[in-house]
Amino acid sequence: MISKQNSDSLFRIQSRTFEILDSFGLDQVWRESTHVKEATFWDPDENGKIHRSSRVPNSMKGLSRFDCTGTIHQGVIESFLIQAIRASASVPSHPEVIIEGNITPSSLHIDETLIDDQDAYPVMVTLKHFDDASVVDAKSRGNIDESLHKTSFGDDDSKPKYLQNAQPGAEELVLAKYFVGCDGAHSWVRKALGQEFRLRGETTEAIWGAMDIIPVTDFPDIRVRSMVRSTSGGSLMMIPRENKLVRLYIQLTDGLSTNCLLTRSMVTPEMLIETAQRILSPYTIDFTYIHWWSAYQIVQRSGDHFDKQGRIFLAGDAVHTHSPKAGQGMNVSMQDTYNLGWKIGLACKGLVRPTAIIPTYDMERKLVAKELIAFDRKFSELLSMHSAKDISESSVELKQFFKKAPLFTTGIGVNYASSILTVVDDEAYGLAKYTVPGKRFASCQVTNHSDGRVWELHHRMPSDGRFRIMVFGGNIADAEQRFGVNTLGQWLGKTLIPRYPPINICPIVDRRLQTVRFQSELMTPIIEIFLVHTAPRDQIDVLRDVDSTYHPWHPKLGWDYDHIFTASRVATQDNIQLTQSVYRDYGIDEERGAVVLVRPDGYVGMVTSVAAKEARTKICNWFDSLLQGLDN
Amino acid sequence: MISKQNSDSLFRIQSRTFEILDSFGLDQVWRESTHVKEATFWDPDENGKIHRSSRVPNSMKGLSRFDCTGTIHQGVIESFLIQAIRASASVPSHPEVIIEGNITPSSLHIDETLIDDQDAYPVMVTLKHFDDASVVDAKSRGNIDESLHKTSFGDDDSKPKYLQNAQPGAEELVLAKYFVGCDGAHSWVRKALGQEFRLRGETTEAIWGAMDIIPVTDFPDIRVRSMVRSTSGGSLMMIPRENKLVRLYIQLTDGLSTNCLLTRSMVTPEMLIETAQRILSPYTIDFTYIHWWSAYQIVQRSGDHFDKQGRIFLAGDAVHTHSPKAGQGMNVSMQDTYNLGWKIGLACKGLVRPTAIIPTYDMERKLVAKELIAFDRKFSELLSMHSAKDISESSVELKQFFKKAPLFTTGIGVNYASSILTVVDDEAYGLAKYTVPGKRFASCQVTNHSDGRVWELHHRMPSDGRFRIMVFGGNIADAEQRFGVNTLGQWLGKTLIPRYPPINICPIVDRRLQTVRFQSELMTPIIEIFLVHTAPRDQIDVLRDVDSTYHPWHPKLGWDYDHIFTASRVATQDNIQLTQSVYRDYGIDEERGAVVLVRPDGYVGMVTSVAAKEARTKICNWFDSLLQGLDN
Repeated sequence: MISKQNSDSLFRIQSRTFEILDSFGLDQVWRESTHVKEATFWDPDENGKIHRSSRVPNSMKGLSRFDCTGTIHQGVIESFLIQAIRASASVPSHPEVIIEGNITPSSLHIDETLIDDQDAYPVMVTLKHFDDASVVDAKSRGNIDESLHKTSFGDDDSKPKYLQNAQPGAEELVLAKYFVGCDGAHSWVRKALGQEFRLRGETTEAIWGAMDIIPVTDFPDIRVRSMVRSTSGGSLMMIPRENKLVRLYIQLTDGLSTNCLLTRSMVTPEMLIETAQRILSPYTIDFTYIHWWSAYQIVQRSGDHFDKQGRIFLAGDAVHTHSPKAGQGMNVSMQDTYNLGWKIGLACKGLVRPTAIIPTYDMERKLVAKELIAFDRKFSELLSMHSAKDISESSVELKQFFKKAPLFTTGIGVNYASSILTVVDDEAYGLAKYTVPGKRFASCQVTNHSDGRVWELHHRMPSDGRFRIMVFGGNIADAEQRFGVNTLGQWLGKTLIPRYPPINICPIVDRRLQTVRFQSELMTPIIEIFLVHTAPRDQIDVLRDVDSTYHPWHPKLGWDYDHIFTASRVATQDNIQLTQSVYRDYGIDEERGAVVLVRPDGYVGMVTSVAAKEARTKICNWFDSLLQGLDN
Repeated sequence: MISKQNSDSLFRIQSRTFEILDSFGLDQVWRESTHVKEATFWDPDENGKIHRSSRVPNSMKGLSRFDCTGTIHQGVIESFLIQAIRASASVPSHPEVIIEGNITPSSLHIDETLIDDQDAYPVMVTLKHFDDASVVDAKSRGNIDESLHKTSFGDDDSKPKYLQNAQPGAEELVLAKYFVGCDGAHSWVRKALGQEFRLRGETTEAIWGAMDIIPVTDFPDIRVRSMVRSTSGGSLMMIPRENKLVRLYIQLTDGLSTNCLLTRSMVTPEMLIETAQRILSPYTIDFTYIHWWSAYQIVQRSGDHFDKQGRIFLAGDAVHTHSPKAGQGMNVSMQDTYNLGWKIGLACKGLVRPTAIIPTYDMERKLVAKELIAFDRKFSELLSMHSAKDISESSVELKQFFKKAPLFTTGIGVNYASSILTVVDDEAYGLAKYTVPGKRFASCQVTNHSDGRVWELHHRMPSDGRFRIMVFGGNIADAEQRFGVNTLGQWLGKTLIPRYPPINICPIVDRRLQTVRFQSELMTPIIEIFLVHTAPRDQIDVLRDVDSTYHPWHPKLGWDYDHIFTASRVATQDNIQLTQSVYRDYGIDEERGAVVLVRPDGYVGMVTSVAAKEARTKICNWFDSLLQGLDN
């Protein structure tokens, strides 16, 4: 994977990205980021003086347990990611992942004759090693693309260190099964793929500045996300970040006045703060510490192809660029590769059918990119109003837009279309009303049947490449319902699971889970099964009443106690259990239940019923279409 | 500080200990420990067959946000502590703390002529360095005390590595202001202090076994804390721990049958599991993996003196020993040194009056030790019933005892008596009904006035040696109330704070707080001031309405935004704020408020009123009695 460091050092992390990071055990990102809980709108009053016209939550209630944006330095996230990768590598028999820096590709080819051979390595890429000094040198000679951003490159303590694996100047030829270009807006990989991969869209003439300062100000909303539209100097948006810093986005020109001669290269930090002062007047703002600054034009473009022949892929800014103001860049980009990663990973391990699964990357993520561009265009337009009349007329529209925006900006609203991975089954309609194929499976709090501990379901479902069957078994205190759940369980354990080869997962992805496995037994089924029931705990002895597929036996470890949950936060009070079922949140019938098949990236693949015999056929067909069977 | 590693590798962490660890930023202990949420009682039925007679929460509702016991390996906690100490040492100008291993004291004296000189080093201790091999050697020759426990010393991956700072055999003389012996039940330091420091109490004859196994069993409550009293083989308690392990405490003899010839040295793991099998019958239990095992007699003893001349201290098992079954050992011991640490620390820095503060350690912790012994005696007695009649008769008593126990076992109920540190003021009675001097100041969720983020108040109050004044300002939207709060603020900022020298604290104790300080400005007031008000947020512009003591100005960092909170979890919904005041939890009037003075260890020192003039005199007198003034 070829990636490029972004010069913009602020990350605004959205709810779905927090969920994804958490699914790798990286919950420290949430704890250590600055939580941006609120947004305020400031508009001119009848005398042209700005005033707070509204204060709203910077998210939408109930979308995610990570209920707002978090801001954090890019270097901090990268350090966490590198630490996590290194920790995984310390597990015996787990392959080491090497992260190298100071590398650029210099040629890229596909051997067309090998495309259909899943064991072959059809991608040939030449990599060139250089040292830091030569980057600067090459830049000044124009050989390496300059960043879109003119930047001061502020001192950056958190910059992670990468491995330098070869002598500068050395070249190496790499043969690969798959190759991913995440090398930013000026992607070398995209250019190497040719004309048909060019991004299409528009560059606006409006110039904006961005700066990270520790503000010295009397503006009262400096620690919330504030959008200020003035008649005295244009628009400004502020985003509080960590360590007392605030990111300011400042409109410098509206791109409409034909007499404006400002170009990006003329922008200075003095110009930025003076414009901010004009916009915020009569409040004052200044700084003695500036961390970073930049000037940019808004470029809204995306590509028509996210992959070439299912072997070379583009992700992130390499295939969609837009303005930074909605805080989407890193989020949509990470979600691109999160969508792609498990597909390539399982294909490399020979566990899935690549021809079925790989094409879904382009299909699923291209639509998200199109939505992103449309969203960004509208948001930029609303923020860029410059006359009192326009501001006033668009005020209601901006607030309504902002109110609905979280469905998109949080990443929670993403809804992948019907495909081999996402089966919309008319007969299943209504079985799980709020658990829709194509959307991410939401997390609810459930109680471990055996120890009474409350867990977020997401915590039990780490991103380890496994599919999951969530059996919402309904009221298993009822004998008939229990029979159905046990019949299904027996079929899952005896018939379905043995059809597919097991997977070697890294057991320390998440220390919370305390997975115990003997070193000699590193393989585990590629489908993990959970039972979430609504019966009162004391009426069920799982060892006696529930099929062992839901609590597998191990001769050395005994029974498993980590896969059966009750659908409630149980407050045990002597013998009384106060329950509130999460079935309602999923839209599932508390007596009869439903079965939800979840993809390795946490999206709902299919919903079916617990008891119906044809449900088994449907489950089997779905997995057969995706997974390599043991008999292949 | 001389400490000794305990061979018992399981820690059962109670609520107050979690709060203390969290106050050092060590929240990972909570996340990575096994949460023991429930307890069940199993008694014989009329046919002598055991059955679950009750299931109860393993804590008490509302005591703490850490709402149950957590179990974790001792080595894991020690690693976290060492990491935290090392991280603190990486801060420029912060003193490095060195942790050395393989050291034992060989002589200890106090120079009586220097006791009253606060600048002198009256404690002289000779330390002897040895290597690991010589420990074993010395043990076999009986020169070093053997542990109370006969132990198998299971393999222990998590054992932290200590610095070996000198050649084995080397001796060094250390002159110290203060010296703490935390060297366990057979404390060398205690013996060196002489006859009057002997522990008093009793050793029972009953022999218990303890073992950590991965159980292979069909007992349904193996993952909760179960107390099983049988007529077929005695009593047993199980505590689930991490990585599928379960700790079993197994009664081997009741210490009453005079014909019993069993001694500790005869105990084997086979004997332990066979006894467990007999007690749990007709359920089965066995293991293939055993992590650790031991046999012990219950020794309930404590000392009459916790310090010698305010210079040498005993803490933990060195001054109180008891049975492990209530999971108190590590907790009460850590709370001993947590009580002592800030007192010695601030005395060494010359910031407090040692003669006032140091004696409170003995006073406060001795009473806790006495309670601990009494508690343990009763609990052991109830668990050790051996006849059907006794079990049946004590059944209700055991359950009632267990129901009230969390007040003591969690550590939350600790109530330090009135002293110079804990001022019970009759006039203040009723100002903060549930915020009592001598008890720990509870955490509630409050909302940052400036950014709307919800915080646990405890998160804003890390253990950094500072005192805190919590001004519950009431409804500052009311002009008169606001005037009172601002008058108090002005006095605090202009008169009180400047009386005392500032403190150099480590700014990275807790990364959540994102404290920003310039390296040239490492000193901060020893008293930190918070304002928690009940006014609607939009009615107060803190920069305009509130005295700057509550949001201090810094020429480079601007205003402070981290010390003013609203007393509610605010759910902003357009302009509507849904509030539920935490004033009710503290028992404080929502209009008029109260002032709570909090000690560096988080215990309430004093409560007084906001507006009354004599409140200022009381606050000033309290700090004057404890702190060194700048004019001294």
